[in-house]
Amino acid sequence: MVNGLGPGVEFDLIRRFLDDMPPLPDAVRVGAGDDAAVLRDGVVVSADLSVEDVHFRRGWLEPEDIGYRAGAAALSDLAAMAAEPVAVLAAVAFPPADVPAVAERVVRGLREAADAAGAALIGGDVSRSPGPMVLDVVVLGRTERPVLRSGVEPGDEIWVTGELGGAAAAVAALAAGQTPPVAAARLFRRPSPRIREALWLAEHAVLHALIDLSDGLAGDASHLSAASDVAITLAAADVPIHPDAAGDADAADGGLRLALGGGEDYELCMAAPPGSIQAVREAFTERFGLRLSRVGLARQGSGVSVLDSQGRVMDMHAFRHFEGAGGTG
Amino acid sequence: MVNGLGPGVEFDLIRRFLDDMPPLPDAVRVGAGDDAAVLRDGVVVSADLSVEDVHFRRGWLEPEDIGYRAGAAALSDLAAMAAEPVAVLAAVAFPPADVPAVAERVVRGLREAADAAGAALIGGDVSRSPGPMVLDVVVLGRTERPVLRSGVEPGDEIWVTGELGGAAAAVAALAAGQTPPVAAARLFRRPSPRIREALWLAEHAVLHALIDLSDGLAGDASHLSAASDVAITLAAADVPIHPDAAGDADAADGGLRLALGGGEDYELCMAAPPGSIQAVREAFTERFGLRLSRVGLARQGSGVSVLDSQGRVMDMHAFRHFEGAGGTG
Repeated sequence: MVNGLGPGVEFDLIRRFLDDMPPLPDAVRVGAGDDAAVLRDGVVVSADLSVEDVHFRRGWLEPEDIGYRAGAAALSDLAAMAAEPVAVLAAVAFPPADVPAVAERVVRGLREAADAAGAALIGGDVSRSPGPMVLDVVVLGRTERPVLRSGVEPGDEIWVTGELGGAAAAVAALAAGQTPPVAAARLFRRPSPRIREALWLAEHAVLHALIDLSDGLAGDASHLSAASDVAITLAAADVPIHPDAAGDADAADGGLRLALGGGEDYELCMAAPPGSIQAVREAFTERFGLRLSRVGLARQGSGVSVLDSQGRVMDMHAFRHFEGAGGTG
Repeated sequence: MVNGLGPGVEFDLIRRFLDDMPPLPDAVRVGAGDDAAVLRDGVVVSADLSVEDVHFRRGWLEPEDIGYRAGAAALSDLAAMAAEPVAVLAAVAFPPADVPAVAERVVRGLREAADAAGAALIGGDVSRSPGPMVLDVVVLGRTERPVLRSGVEPGDEIWVTGELGGAAAAVAALAAGQTPPVAAARLFRRPSPRIREALWLAEHAVLHALIDLSDGLAGDASHLSAASDVAITLAAADVPIHPDAAGDADAADGGLRLALGGGEDYELCMAAPPGSIQAVREAFTERFGLRLSRVGLARQGSGVSVLDSQGRVMDMHAFRHFEGAGGTG
């Protein structure tokens, strides 16, 4: 989500209407409300919309980047289920002025993202748009054992991969008319869905729940909390903040707001029993060159709170700016 | 496709770019270029875009009908593969003024179409649109033996279900500011994807190839011809024309143009060895209350031609108006 352009409460109503399903048929194992749906035989499927001037701004990205980001965001939903990518479909609507040059570059970027994830682009649909460019990227994957949002247990540790807030730092710079720092710009333009990382962690550790960070850590922790009916407490001092977020001129909080509320990091957030991830932490970092950080704990209760370094509960309002912006069934 | 609003040549370029794939991975049996893609294990998937003012006009339809049509059009791609519907995902972008009332009605119509086909709505995505309403309906089905576009053999008969041109007659009336005939209006607002019919025919007859009529018989026969590398000859006198198309005031040709070029009938068109469909014709009609008509023949060669009642080749131009409008991988 691009700053301040996220769907509001009314759109959450529609989302709930989509989610408000009759009992699932036998052929469906997981329906709406998680990062992806899962069929009985382990086929995982998710759809992810990228709408111009809602999810991206044309002036901030090259056409290839628009396609790459749309693809990466969709593929990240497979990572969030610990599913192996199989195939991608792209339904794309372009304003006539984009055809053919811009459109071909967008599709090329989308194919690059699919290739990087080992997924084949196997079809889709193409239309003219009388308004914005619209991309719906449909991803198909496979898993024998999907890791859901709903499995967090009281006592679980909450962990994240990588560093947070980098993409949000790039967005903040672009919105201010500045050139974003190089590393942050790269994270924003070419996010890396953590697919191999999720598969590795699901194999080597005990994951009770998993989600990808598309709404910011505060928002996505809320999704875990709500789906699992537990309270989650995050320790601000333990949140791994990307250097470009920490160094942001406006970030008097050391980038905490960007890391907790910024979204679009596409890192993983998971719940695991105490010690399970610590035991594989070094091996993970050695293999993937990526940090693993314990950022919080789950306990009985509900909701998400953030504690400052003195253990005081912080005001969550600033961190929930983009709530409801991501997510797809 | 709504008259005259179809994508043009430039969009076909993009479509080809989407279709121009490297060799398929083992996990994929059928890639882009057919009505749907098929994974190795028989999972069938297709995405179908409905864009306001491209695929539909808001003033011509109730919100429920917009959703129903989008769902039915997508589900028809499963019929075209002789696949059993399993699930539907809906990625929907609404202008803020549509939220929540219009949006909820659209999604309700979409769910009705899914329910009617026995498919569960298992997720999707929701966004604001700064322009038109955009619906991407993703359908998942299953088949052990998909019937493709590419299996037509020289000597095959070409058959269609039902009567053609009814939906196009409704569109013609609406475009002229008139009230469409009741039956045609119903076909336009609430098309019936021929799913059970396709499954029955695949079981009881030998189908070499199958497609759904979304681009008009002339256009869809062209898809069969191109995919199978055969010539197809249609006999104008044998085309079953819907009474509301035949009775159209402007239809000096008895509705032939609407039937061949009109699109959106969502009837089935299939190729079968001589006699195969004739043998089950009565049983089919008794079961489904639907005609089966032999409309042409395949032979060695390429392209589609239409013969008039004197056996003369007719000018195809008038029948190809909407070429390239439909189709999805």
